[in-house]
Amino acid sequence: MVLPAFLTRTVRLLLGRADRPLHTQAAVVATLVLGVTMLLGSYAAVAAERGAPSANLTSYPKALWWSVETATTVGYGDFYPVTLWGRLIACVVMFVGITAYGMITAAIAAWFVGREQKRQHRLTQAAHDRLLGGERRLSADAEALYARFDRLEGMIASRGGRHGGGDDLTRGYGEPRPGEQS
Amino acid sequence: MVLPAFLTRTVRLLLGRADRPLHTQAAVVATLVLGVTMLLGSYAAVAAERGAPSANLTSYPKALWWSVETATTVGYGDFYPVTLWGRLIACVVMFVGITAYGMITAAIAAWFVGREQKRQHRLTQAAHDRLLGGERRLSADAEALYARFDRLEGMIASRGGRHGGGDDLTRGYGEPRPGEQS
Amino acid sequence: MVLPAFLTRTVRLLLGRADRPLHTQAAVVATLVLGVTMLLGSYAAVAAERGAPSANLTSYPKALWWSVETATTVGYGDFYPVTLWGRLIACVVMFVGITAYGMITAAIAAWFVGREQKRQHRLTQAAHDRLLGGERRLSADAEALYARFDRLEGMIASRGGRHGGGDDLTRGYGEPRPGEQS
Amino acid sequence: MVLPAFLTRTVRLLLGRADRPLHTQAAVVATLVLGVTMLLGSYAAVAAERGAPSANLTSYPKALWWSVETATTVGYGDFYPVTLWGRLIACVVMFVGITAYGMITAAIAAWFVGREQKRQHRLTQAAHDRLLGGERRLSADAEALYARFDRLEGMIASRGGRHGGGDDLTRGYGEPRPGEQS
Repeated sequence: MVLPAFLTRTVRLLLGRADRPLHTQAAVVATLVLGVTMLLGSYAAVAAERGAPSANLTSYPKALWWSVETATTVGYGDFYPVTLWGRLIACVVMFVGITAYGMITAAIAAWFVGREQKRQHRLTQAAHDRLLGGERRLSADAEALYARFDRLEGMIASRGGRHGGGDDLTRGYGEPRPGEQS
Repeated sequence: MVLPAFLTRTVRLLLGRADRPLHTQAAVVATLVLGVTMLLGSYAAVAAERGAPSANLTSYPKALWWSVETATTVGYGDFYPVTLWGRLIACVVMFVGITAYGMITAAIAAWFVGREQKRQHRLTQAAHDRLLGGERRLSADAEALYARFDRLEGMIASRGGRHGGGDDLTRGYGEPRPGEQS
Repeated sequence: MVLPAFLTRTVRLLLGRADRPLHTQAAVVATLVLGVTMLLGSYAAVAAERGAPSANLTSYPKALWWSVETATTVGYGDFYPVTLWGRLIACVVMFVGITAYGMITAAIAAWFVGREQKRQHRLTQAAHDRLLGGERRLSADAEALYARFDRLEGMIASRGGRHGGGDDLTRGYGEPRPGEQS
Repeated sequence: MVLPAFLTRTVRLLLGRADRPLHTQAAVVATLVLGVTMLLGSYAAVAAERGAPSANLTSYPKALWWSVETATTVGYGDFYPVTLWGRLIACVVMFVGITAYGMITAAIAAWFVGREQKRQHRLTQAAHDRLLGGERRLSADAEALYARFDRLEGMIASRGGRHGGGDDLTRGYGEPRPGEQS
């Protein structure tokens, strides 16, 4: 059958972009799994119900409609399984349906929350940038204080030179500041 | 028909304020789309079902009630579509109903989470303000250290002047500190 | 009737503690509103349906059971309204039921997310405390540098005194540092 | 009965790893409670309904199927309770079912949001690390300024020694900087 290959390609097409967040991918996968479950569920339900005397799920179109109203938990009651296997299949369709809708609801919630978080994250980022800018200015201040020390030592050394001697004190004159410069 | 114009104006009225967050807008749009889908769905379902021999969705009031119990997934089973087109319309009503309620649930969740986040963001903001205040004090300290250097150099230069010479050392006296002052 | 007074007191008792977060309060209110809606809805449904010829919602116990299966969207179809007013009441019960369960789901989600956020907020808080501690140490460093300037100026002034004069240079000796100390 | 012991051990096995977040634990507990409620509910429903004349929940397999379609809120209407006790049991099954699915939806939402938060938390952490690194560099700058003061005082003291006296000025020479070093 060509169906699995088609599905694989569809999944690849939909999930191929790695920049999509997890919840978008999960919602897409949940929708695909739900669709496949409804299709296979209706097929399996007819196979399971066909032999039962009081069965009402006897044709594929009816069974597909039944699987939709089961997965969405509407459950009109116009069609329902009466055999053990039909009911087990119905349980799977219900479970997949509810989980898929729960996952889509959760994905929408994560999308809403994520947008709000991104906005607040930008504010935090701006605050961090301001703090880093302040640190950079302080670092420049410290560097300038080194230069002032250099000049002050130069002044004292040169005045000492006029008074005489003091060569050993010029050791370390123009000494580099510690660490790397930002 | 005047309905689309009325809807456009209602949507504009409800979404006009740009300061509303995305999830509030999405919940409002979902509610409106759900309402329109239930109205159009009941109208279309009657049109689809009218000719079918075993149809029970035969009047507009019944069909509107049916679309409500379908969209909310209650599905008593007192009314249900029996034709292919009626069932396709029912699928749309179910899908829109579940998605709308999922979106409203997600919007409420985002609202709850957002309130909690705003409170914590204020705490982070306060911490950032304290840190920025500390940096500003350190910056003022650095500026004052420059002034001390200026005075120290002035002291040495003037004492040097008494001892004689040293004019070239007063170059850069009162030099401004690097960068702009916050 | 004593019911409103009782409800008011129950609401006050449940919401009285102001330290409860919004989503807990909303979940409690949603549960209470749902309970009241199911009680009043069953009462009103019987009143609306009583006169209809094909009505099945004819007694209060049956109507209460019906309002429960309507609010939870189970909708077996054993009981359902057949009159316009009965169906309008059913719409209200469905709407309140779905919204209440959506709000409870959203509240649980906000509770889960909030716990995770609190843990991460503590980590951010710890980082801010470390940063503030670093600023405090830098501030102490700046203060100590002032003291060194004071001593250095004292040294130069006293040596100047031995050489003679320089009284005007001791102006500002022991000058306080700018701003308040943290 | 060995069932409670088995359940206790299953719960311990599933929840034993303390590093699982709260929402994962809650989803697992909700699933277990839902399973137990469906089993006990079907058992209790048969016991309650058995004597009623119009009862349709008369065998355990039927009752188990009914409890599944009740907990998932599908409610086909092929089976439903007709006695007061049967309906009370149905209310419990509905309530547990909806709450369990709500909790699972909330847990998925918290998982999605938590992943997004962890990514943003890493960015905040990186910003804090950069800020701490800047503070550490500033601290090293301050330490180096102390060393410059020491040398400057040494220069002045030694030049003072050539001019004469000044021993008392070397008090505090090489004084340690305040606070602990980071």
